[in-house]
Amino acid sequence: MKKKLLRGGLAVALVLAPAFAAADKIDDAIAYRKAVMEAQKWNLGRMAAMVKGTVAYDKAAFVRYAQWLDELSRMPWEAFPKGSDVGDTKARADIWNKPAQFSDKAKALETESAKLVEVARSEDMGKIRFQFGQTAQTCKACHKAFKDR
Amino acid sequence: MKKKLLRGGLAVALVLAPAFAAADKIDDAIAYRKAVMEAQKWNLGRMAAMVKGTVAYDKAAFVRYAQWLDELSRMPWEAFPKGSDVGDTKARADIWNKPAQFSDKAKALETESAKLVEVARSEDMGKIRFQFGQTAQTCKACHKAFKDR
Repeated sequence: MKKKLLRGGLAVALVLAPAFAAADKIDDAIAYRKAVMEAQKWNLGRMAAMVKGTVAYDKAAFVRYAQWLDELSRMPWEAFPKGSDVGDTKARADIWNKPAQFSDKAKALETESAKLVEVARSEDMGKIRFQFGQTAQTCKACHKAFKDR
Repeated sequence: MKKKLLRGGLAVALVLAPAFAAADKIDDAIAYRKAVMEAQKWNLGRMAAMVKGTVAYDKAAFVRYAQWLDELSRMPWEAFPKGSDVGDTKARADIWNKPAQFSDKAKALETESAKLVEVARSEDMGKIRFQFGQTAQTCKACHKAFKDR
């Protein structure tokens, strides 16, 4: 039930929402989406260490990080109100100029991280490594298209 | 099943974990826990706006924010390795000097935000308002005890 509530077109709906308030609200939105992505990075990093073998593989921990990444994957998209390409952000104007493309890339993270949760439960390190790569790739692809260096 | 995996003593276990790496890892941990709390703040703020009536109450949205806060409530505790009271942080040394008290305050957020998810499903605004207050209070109580101004 939870999954049903959380899933479904959020990325599209929220990116297209109008700017929801004044400048301080925009700054809050920028801070929030950056925080969520920082948190995504941490969870990816903890999984990366296990995939690379620099930290011992721990199934329960890996599944937990995958689940957290999956939750975090759906959080930031409401925090791209129009006008939030200005401020303490590297977001490119193309996010708002090409909303369908941005939404596709946002949803790719949601989709691949949801798959990663499933694969993480398998304990098949070959599959886990592959799906981890697929997931991490969605971050890179979106940043390449929509984030300034 | 998910809940079972995620719940249970994380706060205690992880706060007491030894420092897990060198200084750059400590900086990463500080950045992560701050990011998670920033994300908690956003979700609390979105619910606060509905509780106060400055934004129209939307049950599905409120439940979603409560669920996200609940997920976020369990994330930061692994990111308090020993030695991470130094750096870009307002964390007080008492976190490591009084780990049981810190853990109690950390778990209070987990407990109250889990209750908030249940109450949010009720659509009883009196109960929602009360439980929202209980939840927000756990942030304040922990910051008062363990965070510098």
